[in-house]
Amino acid sequence: MKFTNRNVAISPTAKIGQNVRIGDNSTIYDNVEIGDDSIICNDCIIGEPLNSYYRDSSYENPPTVIGAGSVVRSHSIIYANCSIGREFNTGHRVTIRENTVIGDHCSVGTLSDLEGDIQIGSYCRLHSNVHISQTSSMGDFVWMYPYSVMTNDPFPPSYDIKGGHVGSYTQVCVHSIILSGVQVGENCLIGAASVVNRNLPDYSLATGDPARVIKDLRKYVVMGKGRPYPWMYRFDRGMPWKGIGYDSWANGARQKTPEGEAAQTAGKK
Amino acid sequence: MKFTNRNVAISPTAKIGQNVRIGDNSTIYDNVEIGDDSIICNDCIIGEPLNSYYRDSSYENPPTVIGAGSVVRSHSIIYANCSIGREFNTGHRVTIRENTVIGDHCSVGTLSDLEGDIQIGSYCRLHSNVHISQTSSMGDFVWMYPYSVMTNDPFPPSYDIKGGHVGSYTQVCVHSIILSGVQVGENCLIGAASVVNRNLPDYSLATGDPARVIKDLRKYVVMGKGRPYPWMYRFDRGMPWKGIGYDSWANGARQKTPEGEAAQTAGKK
Amino acid sequence: MKFTNRNVAISPTAKIGQNVRIGDNSTIYDNVEIGDDSIICNDCIIGEPLNSYYRDSSYENPPTVIGAGSVVRSHSIIYANCSIGREFNTGHRVTIRENTVIGDHCSVGTLSDLEGDIQIGSYCRLHSNVHISQTSSMGDFVWMYPYSVMTNDPFPPSYDIKGGHVGSYTQVCVHSIILSGVQVGENCLIGAASVVNRNLPDYSLATGDPARVIKDLRKYVVMGKGRPYPWMYRFDRGMPWKGIGYDSWANGARQKTPEGEAAQTAGKK
Repeated sequence: MKFTNRNVAISPTAKIGQNVRIGDNSTIYDNVEIGDDSIICNDCIIGEPLNSYYRDSSYENPPTVIGAGSVVRSHSIIYANCSIGREFNTGHRVTIRENTVIGDHCSVGTLSDLEGDIQIGSYCRLHSNVHISQTSSMGDFVWMYPYSVMTNDPFPPSYDIKGGHVGSYTQVCVHSIILSGVQVGENCLIGAASVVNRNLPDYSLATGDPARVIKDLRKYVVMGKGRPYPWMYRFDRGMPWKGIGYDSWANGARQKTPEGEAAQTAGKK
Repeated sequence: MKFTNRNVAISPTAKIGQNVRIGDNSTIYDNVEIGDDSIICNDCIIGEPLNSYYRDSSYENPPTVIGAGSVVRSHSIIYANCSIGREFNTGHRVTIRENTVIGDHCSVGTLSDLEGDIQIGSYCRLHSNVHISQTSSMGDFVWMYPYSVMTNDPFPPSYDIKGGHVGSYTQVCVHSIILSGVQVGENCLIGAASVVNRNLPDYSLATGDPARVIKDLRKYVVMGKGRPYPWMYRFDRGMPWKGIGYDSWANGARQKTPEGEAAQTAGKK
Repeated sequence: MKFTNRNVAISPTAKIGQNVRIGDNSTIYDNVEIGDDSIICNDCIIGEPLNSYYRDSSYENPPTVIGAGSVVRSHSIIYANCSIGREFNTGHRVTIRENTVIGDHCSVGTLSDLEGDIQIGSYCRLHSNVHISQTSSMGDFVWMYPYSVMTNDPFPPSYDIKGGHVGSYTQVCVHSIILSGVQVGENCLIGAASVVNRNLPDYSLATGDPARVIKDLRKYVVMGKGRPYPWMYRFDRGMPWKGIGYDSWANGARQKTPEGEAAQTAGKK
């Protein structure tokens, strides 16, 4: 039904792994490497040339890597000089600009816009319509929800571009803003529509504009639910501790499962 | 000018109605049914296969229905197993995921993202860049404005996915958030940038973060304008009470006009 | 690498300037004029026909103009009857609806959505995902950041559509909303996530929901940075005062540089 080789263009210098499928109307530019068993859906552009291409006749496309077992959904654009791990997943119409490094087992949702020069760990989940500005970074197991933003300019417009950082396991809820240079700790929960304008310690439950820490997240009790955070004790879909529990994985069982093996680097960070 | 049959792919199992036009570079997948006099503009994908397609060689595309007289604008993606009524209208780059049911006379604006498993009544208007999460629902004549969101996860990430509901005739203004599971009544006005975290009764004028009911909407008086709500008494463009007035339509005149006839089901809900 | 003339469609009535490149899969409709040395990347649609095209067999596409030296990035859609100045730049998947007038040296970022009937001066920078509603306008040197919105309906839904205006040199930060009909002065800074519901005088530093003027921006002092605003005294990348300083340019030096010459009209507004 799909993958009929209609209007597909693949550069002769691209390295396409075993059992990779490329969708109709997609373009794979020079020096792209796509890992085995990956699927690039229709109307995608992989290895989009950098801006200098348009005016420099001696331009050579830098390498672009997408790991094995990935699925890039239709109309997505991934620029050259990105390095993305295995089991990567996207929604539709994702944009990932150059010099972005993404670990293994990450997903980026429909319409999300990664502006380039970004560092993302492993097992991160960016939902639809997340905007990450240049020089931002996040740890592992970070989840960000629709219309959340990481900004990078403290006094716009300026030359002092400085992205923020979101620590591992932190959840950034819908419509929240992490302002330029802010360091959000690990294992935080940033409530919907918050504006985070200062650093937050680990385990912060923070909300509001400007965001204030209203509780240690470990002490957050919900009637009938107990303590929902840290979330890793009640949620394991797609996570390396699936079936063994977070503590077992964190305490070393991780290397005993294939999932855990892949996550070793992630877990050690 | 358009509709030159350039690079169009239509599955042999698709049922294309009379006088339907399919734009260049568009793809119509298996088991899609498009009603008479509809227009699918260029670069669209109708009947996008579900995720299981990619790994299941025995996959069969479930049916997808778009009603008569619809216009789907360019670069839109409508997944398989959606059922959409007649006179449907979209902007550009709309995404509608599987198992979404939409009534008659609805519109979904540019870049809006319907995540699937969603129920939408008739005569609803989603403006540009509205995000509706899975298991959300709304009545009839609901309008939502740019960057408004319905969320579905009370303690992210969790397995307790539960969308909210927006009642008929309610207006959800720009950048507003309806949190997971919240029931918004009928005939409400949710002000810009509100975060609705609890149920709201009919006729609420609510605003803020968290949103508070500041008035019964029927008592809201604007200098020089009188009482602008309920809006159905001063606005009828594209509505089934056009030319006859809301009360006449609501009291039974509806079946006397072709528009009203189509809206009968809607009005009775 | 790009520009291989794969699946390109150019109307015979389009006027394509010298040294213009048109990307693969792009469509240029009737009566489009593209200035010299411009680049239209792949998968773009320029001169998208107005809605009346679909039902009117005598439709003629009104003229669409894009000035010299422009770069329109992939998947962008520019409707017919837009007039855009020279050195125009877009991100990916931009939508610009009909009857939009944009000056010289402007840029519109990825996913931004200009709804039509809009007036934009010169040297404006709309970042990713900015939404501008119909009948809105802005001066010159205005910058707007992701998810900022200009709305146009005071009592939705209504027939009283009235866009706002943002004055020259003003910065509208992420997630901010300029409500219908509001006049924002020149040289203002609208903080992140603000909701501007009333007119603001020049040099306002305003923030909050509803936005309040918290300071005259000229008196805003940042520790270690002095007075960062007006920003034109510390930032000149891509600006007509580059290399000569804002005062020299503003006081008349502008006509001595080619950049300044182009900006003369802008500076006088």
